[in-house]
Amino acid sequence: MTDKFLQAAIDEAKKGYNEGGIPIGSVIVYKNKIIGRGHNKRVQNGSAILHGEMDALENTGRLKASVYKECTLYTTLSPCSMCSGTILLYGIPKVVIGENKTFMGEETLLKSRGVELIIANNQECQDLMTKFIAEKPDLWNEDIGE
Amino acid sequence: MTDKFLQAAIDEAKKGYNEGGIPIGSVIVYKNKIIGRGHNKRVQNGSAILHGEMDALENTGRLKASVYKECTLYTTLSPCSMCSGTILLYGIPKVVIGENKTFMGEETLLKSRGVELIIANNQECQDLMTKFIAEKPDLWNEDIGE
Repeated sequence: MTDKFLQAAIDEAKKGYNEGGIPIGSVIVYKNKIIGRGHNKRVQNGSAILHGEMDALENTGRLKASVYKECTLYTTLSPCSMCSGTILLYGIPKVVIGENKTFMGEETLLKSRGVELIIANNQECQDLMTKFIAEKPDLWNEDIGE
Repeated sequence: MTDKFLQAAIDEAKKGYNEGGIPIGSVIVYKNKIIGRGHNKRVQNGSAILHGEMDALENTGRLKASVYKECTLYTTLSPCSMCSGTILLYGIPKVVIGENKTFMGEETLLKSRGVELIIANNQECQDLMTKFIAEKPDLWNEDIGE
């Protein structure tokens, strides 16, 4: 059974897909509670920076460093350089990743800085991205700077 | 004399300071023209992700990868992990940095990935940050996750 927090991130990803956007979702968990959630808003907001993880962090709002250091970030896809850099900036110690088969982010960098990564190998995450990439390859390439 | 593009980033930083915010500014230059500008909006927008560089990229809007790869990013301060990760995501090849004395960002990582860095050692950038950090140390620590 899918972890309830990863499921919440998947629900965000599906919401993005249904809006015509890029189906990547994320939630921020603190003390076993979701304190922020979001999904990629490139299409919806014309945004260059609102990847799923960034949208979740923005929706969470301003936090003290001490709070981030007790958070877990859930994301449906392996985090890109931008989102990984943000995880490092705030010292988020643990990241649960839905899948890294359709895109491999900066996992090596994150691990080298001591971030704990859990790869869920979730089939629903992978199927959703595979479908999206086949449907809108140009949009996907734009999102990852390719 | 200060480079006109760095001066535009400094003007953004001063605007931020005058709004009661964190005085870091940035501009994006493409084919010798500013195509986007911004400044840190933590205070103004209650934002956890709008550092100066991120605000400039967001204000620039969606671009194709081929455009980013011909851009230069100007920033008044050495870019943190988040902003450096974003530079890497989009393959921005050159970054002009006002100063790195009050804060040293991910310059080693950027250089190791082939990004050209020019450190201007600009006194106005350094004075503005020094004054701000002395005035609002807690706000500054929040911005850099410390």
